[in-house]
Amino acid sequence: MNNIITLTTDFGLSDAYVASVKGVILNINPQAVIVDICNTVKPQNIGEAAFILGTAHKYFPEGTIHLAVVDPGVGTKRRAVVLKTPAGSFVAPDNGLLSYIFDDFKARPLAAGTVKTNHNLAAFSITNSKFWRKPVSSTFHGRDIFGPVAAYLSLGTPAGEFGRPLKTLKVLPSARPKPTSGGHLIGSVIHIDNFGNLVANIKKSDLPHGKTISISIAGKQIRGLSYTYAEAEDLLALIGSTGYVEVSLKNGSAAGFLGVGTGDKVNISQT
Amino acid sequence: MNNIITLTTDFGLSDAYVASVKGVILNINPQAVIVDICNTVKPQNIGEAAFILGTAHKYFPEGTIHLAVVDPGVGTKRRAVVLKTPAGSFVAPDNGLLSYIFDDFKARPLAAGTVKTNHNLAAFSITNSKFWRKPVSSTFHGRDIFGPVAAYLSLGTPAGEFGRPLKTLKVLPSARPKPTSGGHLIGSVIHIDNFGNLVANIKKSDLPHGKTISISIAGKQIRGLSYTYAEAEDLLALIGSTGYVEVSLKNGSAAGFLGVGTGDKVNISQT
Amino acid sequence: MNNIITLTTDFGLSDAYVASVKGVILNINPQAVIVDICNTVKPQNIGEAAFILGTAHKYFPEGTIHLAVVDPGVGTKRRAVVLKTPAGSFVAPDNGLLSYIFDDFKARPLAAGTVKTNHNLAAFSITNSKFWRKPVSSTFHGRDIFGPVAAYLSLGTPAGEFGRPLKTLKVLPSARPKPTSGGHLIGSVIHIDNFGNLVANIKKSDLPHGKTISISIAGKQIRGLSYTYAEAEDLLALIGSTGYVEVSLKNGSAAGFLGVGTGDKVNISQT
Repeated sequence: MNNIITLTTDFGLSDAYVASVKGVILNINPQAVIVDICNTVKPQNIGEAAFILGTAHKYFPEGTIHLAVVDPGVGTKRRAVVLKTPAGSFVAPDNGLLSYIFDDFKARPLAAGTVKTNHNLAAFSITNSKFWRKPVSSTFHGRDIFGPVAAYLSLGTPAGEFGRPLKTLKVLPSARPKPTSGGHLIGSVIHIDNFGNLVANIKKSDLPHGKTISISIAGKQIRGLSYTYAEAEDLLALIGSTGYVEVSLKNGSAAGFLGVGTGDKVNISQT
Repeated sequence: MNNIITLTTDFGLSDAYVASVKGVILNINPQAVIVDICNTVKPQNIGEAAFILGTAHKYFPEGTIHLAVVDPGVGTKRRAVVLKTPAGSFVAPDNGLLSYIFDDFKARPLAAGTVKTNHNLAAFSITNSKFWRKPVSSTFHGRDIFGPVAAYLSLGTPAGEFGRPLKTLKVLPSARPKPTSGGHLIGSVIHIDNFGNLVANIKKSDLPHGKTISISIAGKQIRGLSYTYAEAEDLLALIGSTGYVEVSLKNGSAAGFLGVGTGDKVNISQT
Repeated sequence: MNNIITLTTDFGLSDAYVASVKGVILNINPQAVIVDICNTVKPQNIGEAAFILGTAHKYFPEGTIHLAVVDPGVGTKRRAVVLKTPAGSFVAPDNGLLSYIFDDFKARPLAAGTVKTNHNLAAFSITNSKFWRKPVSSTFHGRDIFGPVAAYLSLGTPAGEFGRPLKTLKVLPSARPKPTSGGHLIGSVIHIDNFGNLVANIKKSDLPHGKTISISIAGKQIRGLSYTYAEAEDLLALIGSTGYVEVSLKNGSAAGFLGVGTGDKVNISQT
């Protein structure tokens, strides 16, 4: 049993939505400690939420329950899932939101945008309406289904009570960098952070060992990796705190300076 | 006794204001569980705060204390109030912020923008300075008066200790939709949410039973109500999670698409 | 021992950063009560964070631990500090973030932008890596160093365990108002709040006693101090809730109306 429940949503900060979910949770488990991961995900941006949740959940105590709701298909037949992992439990629509978790636990990709669960990824469909708030709004399952399920989970309800086991789950199209025949690595920007740092989909382990690399982005060339934001003259690249290659501007926004957005290309070559 | 205290304010997220109130509360009741409903209400927008609080409070446990401070008259002779209801307690300036609560408990309207309290709405003026933080700033009663009162209330201080009973309270001008002689219903937009959904002041119970309706807004016509955001082609209307008619755009912002703002007209007819 | 830990950072609300720090803290002290002071400080704006922390901390219970991270020098040789005061404990980079705390406890200024600690200001360098999260990212000490140190401090670890005592600390250039030979007082705007109120670096105690003053800003003249925001016609000045002179516009933004920003001049004369 764990009383910590985190929230990752696109509900924003200017409505009653986030608070309604918290109220529902506290009704069921008054001892719940609710921690916001991020409620300002851009509306319907599943990829952004997946990245933020995939980063943040690692720092929470084992057994933490992570509630994630970015749900453009709310009220349709899309499935909802409780996922138990050695790191924590996740409650979310089955729409790719948990893609980074699948990756952490090496879920095997199947055809058609799905992965197979394994002994580290026990998934259950959320179908048992016994645990839902009634009447269920067709547009706000965060409040009426996901919130209550997370709360009951925090009280110790076994995940199997919420519905039957699931063998496959939806995953976002993989955004791994691609090697070229010329020995380059072609990746892309997956996240722009609050400081304008550009996070690329290139992990430290993707880089050639013991070689000096050159990072090319938006027509600019950056030679070698820095260790801190402060050490370079202006534009720099480093392995960021999340373990991915980051392009930064000293005391400024690399995104603004380069005019680069999510999805734009990052090219790595050896020099 | 209940340790949950919620906050609804126009203090914003970039100042020391919200945290100062929380610090004051924790000084008085270290066990308080403080939950933000919304602190990004547009400055001095009592109507917006009233709607958000009116929606969110319903999902919190019985006995929750709701602290609401949007207070353009701070430091003047406007009254301050503790309101006890079967749903929870409210601490706020007496300026209409609690209008939706009055409506929930059928407070009888009087002349001149006031309502009469009743057996479900026990109101007390906040006048007993014994419970205030000293010195009281003339511009920040949230920190020096409302916060402490909410904290003492959470410790079990009877509401009658804060001041004398009040028989009337200020209410915002009712924004109920108006029927026309031609059988139409003329309402207006009362809230635009984070997704650009347009919430109208028209409840499910205001609509003609068993008839197909047509919603007209900003020169566009929407025929019938959808059940989910995902099912229509583009523009749609449905009964939103708060029980009001909502106009939405599939995967987009209806407010942006239609160029519609709060107060704009929504016309309902039978087809 | 005190379980309250506050956060003041420039991490923003749209990344995993704030939540990662909270997760790390909850891993070490599951009983910690974490309260956000402000996480929307403008990137790298040490002065703004110092002002907000300097205001907010006073309202928290004695012994509260204040974690502040605005850290353009992260990963370089800048020092990190645990500061114990009668009001609370502070964990931060040694870059001026705690300047207002030094002022509260009358730290003696030395040459070159530093102050001397005293019996109310016991400072310790953060150098003992035993308390850090490993591996330490060179770009995110908030998560890997400051967060863990704050958490261990909340568990009762003596401040001296984190590193050796420090005799001097960095302070921001003082922004006290300057008297002119003509009897004026020349100050400047140090903060613009959520309502557009302009906070000047002029305290009540800086003003001439028992005299009517005239405030001049952006070519406008304001005669005398008001008591509340509501009482004046349009532009007004008053002693704000933080104890500083504030210039406000009734039901509007003085900053927007006057086109004034941080650093702009405020002139006080007697009339």
